[in-house]
Amino acid sequence: MKAFMDQDFLLSTDTARALFHDYAERLPVIDYHCHINPREILEDRRFRNITEVWLGGDHYKWRAMRSNGVDEYYITGDAPDREKFQKYAETLEKCIGNPLYHWSHLELQRFFDYHGVLSGRTAEEVWNLANEKLQTAAFSARNLVRKANVTVICTTDDPVDSLEYHAALKQEMGLGFSVYPAWRPDRAMNIRKPDFTDYVKQLSEVAGMEIRSFGDLTDALMKRMAFFDSMGCRVSDHGLDYVPYSPADPAVIEEIFAKRMNGENVTAAEEAQYQTAFLLAMGKGYSRYNWIMQLHYGCKRNNNTRMFRAIGADTGFDCIRNDAPGSELADFLDALNVDGCLPKTILYSLNPVDNAMIGTIIGCFQDGSAAGKIQQGSAWWFNDHKPGMTEQMRSLASLGVLGNFIGMLTDSRSFLSYPRHEYFRRIMCDFVGTLVENGEYPDDRKALKAIVEGISYYNAKAYFGFRPQV
Amino acid sequence: MKAFMDQDFLLSTDTARALFHDYAERLPVIDYHCHINPREILEDRRFRNITEVWLGGDHYKWRAMRSNGVDEYYITGDAPDREKFQKYAETLEKCIGNPLYHWSHLELQRFFDYHGVLSGRTAEEVWNLANEKLQTAAFSARNLVRKANVTVICTTDDPVDSLEYHAALKQEMGLGFSVYPAWRPDRAMNIRKPDFTDYVKQLSEVAGMEIRSFGDLTDALMKRMAFFDSMGCRVSDHGLDYVPYSPADPAVIEEIFAKRMNGENVTAAEEAQYQTAFLLAMGKGYSRYNWIMQLHYGCKRNNNTRMFRAIGADTGFDCIRNDAPGSELADFLDALNVDGCLPKTILYSLNPVDNAMIGTIIGCFQDGSAAGKIQQGSAWWFNDHKPGMTEQMRSLASLGVLGNFIGMLTDSRSFLSYPRHEYFRRIMCDFVGTLVENGEYPDDRKALKAIVEGISYYNAKAYFGFRPQV
Amino acid sequence: MKAFMDQDFLLSTDTARALFHDYAERLPVIDYHCHINPREILEDRRFRNITEVWLGGDHYKWRAMRSNGVDEYYITGDAPDREKFQKYAETLEKCIGNPLYHWSHLELQRFFDYHGVLSGRTAEEVWNLANEKLQTAAFSARNLVRKANVTVICTTDDPVDSLEYHAALKQEMGLGFSVYPAWRPDRAMNIRKPDFTDYVKQLSEVAGMEIRSFGDLTDALMKRMAFFDSMGCRVSDHGLDYVPYSPADPAVIEEIFAKRMNGENVTAAEEAQYQTAFLLAMGKGYSRYNWIMQLHYGCKRNNNTRMFRAIGADTGFDCIRNDAPGSELADFLDALNVDGCLPKTILYSLNPVDNAMIGTIIGCFQDGSAAGKIQQGSAWWFNDHKPGMTEQMRSLASLGVLGNFIGMLTDSRSFLSYPRHEYFRRIMCDFVGTLVENGEYPDDRKALKAIVEGISYYNAKAYFGFRPQV
Repeated sequence: MKAFMDQDFLLSTDTARALFHDYAERLPVIDYHCHINPREILEDRRFRNITEVWLGGDHYKWRAMRSNGVDEYYITGDAPDREKFQKYAETLEKCIGNPLYHWSHLELQRFFDYHGVLSGRTAEEVWNLANEKLQTAAFSARNLVRKANVTVICTTDDPVDSLEYHAALKQEMGLGFSVYPAWRPDRAMNIRKPDFTDYVKQLSEVAGMEIRSFGDLTDALMKRMAFFDSMGCRVSDHGLDYVPYSPADPAVIEEIFAKRMNGENVTAAEEAQYQTAFLLAMGKGYSRYNWIMQLHYGCKRNNNTRMFRAIGADTGFDCIRNDAPGSELADFLDALNVDGCLPKTILYSLNPVDNAMIGTIIGCFQDGSAAGKIQQGSAWWFNDHKPGMTEQMRSLASLGVLGNFIGMLTDSRSFLSYPRHEYFRRIMCDFVGTLVENGEYPDDRKALKAIVEGISYYNAKAYFGFRPQV
Repeated sequence: MKAFMDQDFLLSTDTARALFHDYAERLPVIDYHCHINPREILEDRRFRNITEVWLGGDHYKWRAMRSNGVDEYYITGDAPDREKFQKYAETLEKCIGNPLYHWSHLELQRFFDYHGVLSGRTAEEVWNLANEKLQTAAFSARNLVRKANVTVICTTDDPVDSLEYHAALKQEMGLGFSVYPAWRPDRAMNIRKPDFTDYVKQLSEVAGMEIRSFGDLTDALMKRMAFFDSMGCRVSDHGLDYVPYSPADPAVIEEIFAKRMNGENVTAAEEAQYQTAFLLAMGKGYSRYNWIMQLHYGCKRNNNTRMFRAIGADTGFDCIRNDAPGSELADFLDALNVDGCLPKTILYSLNPVDNAMIGTIIGCFQDGSAAGKIQQGSAWWFNDHKPGMTEQMRSLASLGVLGNFIGMLTDSRSFLSYPRHEYFRRIMCDFVGTLVENGEYPDDRKALKAIVEGISYYNAKAYFGFRPQV
Repeated sequence: MKAFMDQDFLLSTDTARALFHDYAERLPVIDYHCHINPREILEDRRFRNITEVWLGGDHYKWRAMRSNGVDEYYITGDAPDREKFQKYAETLEKCIGNPLYHWSHLELQRFFDYHGVLSGRTAEEVWNLANEKLQTAAFSARNLVRKANVTVICTTDDPVDSLEYHAALKQEMGLGFSVYPAWRPDRAMNIRKPDFTDYVKQLSEVAGMEIRSFGDLTDALMKRMAFFDSMGCRVSDHGLDYVPYSPADPAVIEEIFAKRMNGENVTAAEEAQYQTAFLLAMGKGYSRYNWIMQLHYGCKRNNNTRMFRAIGADTGFDCIRNDAPGSELADFLDALNVDGCLPKTILYSLNPVDNAMIGTIIGCFQDGSAAGKIQQGSAWWFNDHKPGMTEQMRSLASLGVLGNFIGMLTDSRSFLSYPRHEYFRRIMCDFVGTLVENGEYPDDRKALKAIVEGISYYNAKAYFGFRPQV
């Protein structure tokens, strides 16, 4: 029996252990996609206690607690922090096989140097130990990032954002890591959302131009894109039900836009046409700036209306959808590519059954411009666990060139979540090591070093090409 | 090499063996979903020979024989029982990796104390040995149930059923196990089936009220629900192509119902509206009685028209369908939940690719009312084998709280099928034990005991809350 | 650690090793589905160098190179052969976990007796060694086939093909293997393709009859079918987006056909009706001739318009589609079966998530006419790797009778691809051996021999019933 989560956690062979400890472990972290609030970095936020840092905004943990029958009072309600922590610790005990079990213990080990097992019985001990440490300067937001050996953070930002915190952070000396904005124009894309017209007004003001047409809208966004680019932005992101491809004449798109601005109803078919035009325009912009396009799809959000009314969005009530047509995704990429405007692209589906399909779609648009120009993104959100990551890599390896994979991101709101990179690297080294142990790849340490270090760090570094800032 | 199907069958690690033998093995069985005929329990049915008990109604075995090129004469035809058994034994030999191989040998071991290997060569020996035992009182229906340590059986019953056999069984002293009805109102839901109007008449009679509207129909069903509840029913079941959500005004539903009762045609879209209204009404009823709602979907039935005409339904000609929209399933649950009427619910898809989607949908509707209020049902029917069960548990563990899983059911028509619970427990203990052996969960026997015993027995006991009857 | 790709490659247990070396290894190969050009056999083609034989037409390798950022100049462009080979060797080094890694090394071992590792550093050595051997007579097309112990090759042929090369090959003495045509009438099915009317003209000429109706079209095809049958053809093949079932009156089909021949537009719905009628007509023909029907579906072709314009079809720009309705597939098979005209059929989906669905559909149409009458085809194209093959077999074993599986085909254009049969047999023996080692199947060598030899060779031999020709 392997010891519980020791230094060889998840490393089941000698080769895996060597690959991890010799190559992967010490490399810095490029967290090219997360939801960290840059203001909290600027202000170097401190945390009251482990409940605030762990349960303050983590819908993964909230879901687990609800699944364990814990009352909402102890989750997002007014229960005292100590009681909330107790409920979480008791829940965790039953979460065998859940990534929360590993993430929580990795965070306790790496940040708090606690190597015991968190459960209802040890909650008091962990509470005291963690809270004492959280009072120290070593546990400020910036120091957590430094401790995790992170060199790049990309936040998630709306085109109307002033990026004031990013600007201020650029002035900071000795930060030790770079913080770049990432471009997420979902509000400009979601034409049927109630706040769309308000958003257009906001964008109009920020861009300093009137927006009377779809053409104006994309012009305004291009101005913002130039600004984001000047702030070091290299990455965009889109949150999509599915990647649509419903091409329509420009005049049709203008009509749809005009209707919506007049307060009229837009149909689902019109929405698909609008979003297609919108995404094509964005893609062309990214191509011009040599940005990376991230397409996240396959999520159905806010499924629990009662809880949405009570506590709003992003509170743990989203699910996977299974109705995303891959043929439209392929046709969308082709439409950009045929005009020579397909930027580097990363595809993520929330539905793991899309793995093979995505693996074959990316293969249709690779070209000589970059190794791994089109990427299948790392196992995302609900798939962010050992079986999910392993399956993503097994599929990618079987269908493409694993050695060019750009690897892990946290997608997280928390300053404690960086050990997920370690988690990923262990799983990756185990996957690679097992192939070697099985005689499916030669034990050529030089080649393996290039593969493992590439996936851990160097591939992302080359792929994104962030301008040095630190 | 492990010995063939010995006491450590499917238990690949020391931890797995300890978990099974120390915790799981001896616990009673709650078979909360099956298709046993209660009359056969009341009459304490006896079996002529192993062909009758094994091949009399088991479409799993029939399919395997057809796949082996066996003529229908030896399957559902008039061949002598001995010859049918021979054909099955010869087929089994080629069924490496099929659960029938394991189920058949587990049944031979547990009920008949036969520890050899069934094949064409040993068929005669097994035939003689089994038939001799089947002549003894120890092999009556009741004694088979007792031998299998079953404490609860839920049958599957139509709302118009008199439940006379259940009533009689309640009077039996010393039965040693409880038999409850389960509510399966498919005939009232399948508005396009030819027998719908006849069925409404039958229901009208049994409920003692006229049914002139959809409102009347649901009123009549509520009366029957009260009766079922008085008979100890705690569980409903629905067999669905997919879980629909096509909401419509009550007036629209009444029109659809009226059309159908007038013998007019109902469209597929109207059917979806009707079934949505029907399922919402049922769900609210279950919520009132605190029943459990089971939704089984993803099956396409009776695909072989020629054989359907020859030998009818449930004869082994069903398949998985891949067109069930998960978004409607989520919206349906939300519609009940928003009104505070979502009962405890178990979701089963026949398509294993839905595992992850279901795992995320259940997470959207968990709440403080019960641990694991919304469950992903155990691997069902075509998935009821080691890889299928393992994948269901791996997915559930990755996405939710495995420790709250209510575990196994037989879904069977046979009194010999209870070793499938043992089969499941072995696979579950192996899954859990492997996580421990890998260092992914601590070797904390107290916590593991709670998890393993919970999934084997105690979770279902608490979840269903059957009233004691024995 | 196992040695890299030695004699026990992919054989992880003693049982697996015994099954492979004692039973599977030495059996001949029946390659019942490939894209070899029969003319190259007749002319006994020789190859200039390893770039010609490896990279001349292999879109798998081209995709990998593009994924590695190699410029098209080195792929299908005008770069010198030595440079192209260098680029491939350098790409391969990063392809850990990709079947190309294994196929390439198996081919180097089996044909060129090279047991090193191909990489950028060894490319020169391999180039010299391979090219020297390619100059010898032992490396002619026919000798490569013989060396690979192939006894049957089925090519892929259009109904209008004269089969002149097949005819000539029938006259060859001492060929040592048989070459049969296979019937692939896709051009007659693809009614919306620009060349449809031209094709009908061609068919009219070849069949020696006017084609003025859909009835004429199928009559002409039946004449060709008779000719193909006389040439030893036993197998058909269809390349489909999905298997459609949109039944329509014969008059409707005639109208659609007439419209198309008049140069009018055919809608997608009409196409589905036409293709349904077409496939039903073909299926009935196959049933009459006792041919095998192969249905390949789930592919979206030529996704990269820019590259399609530059270098045409079949150049590595295809992907998996996820919108194939299994219910239509089941209904299509039923429509043939209800009339007693369902031929032996092999189903292949490019989307591996269809595995379980297909496994249950085939089970609906098995009958006493043959063991494994309806087959799930071996893992196809993008799934043709260890995880893909293993999953296909695991699914098939769980849902059907693995012992009747007809096993592997190359689906290849290359004379060097036969080691994929060895690859498959190793994976199959490992799968079977692991079940035995786990105690899930008895260590009964007689039964295992029948299973392993059956899947390797004898099942296909019996299933196809090729007439001896050699």
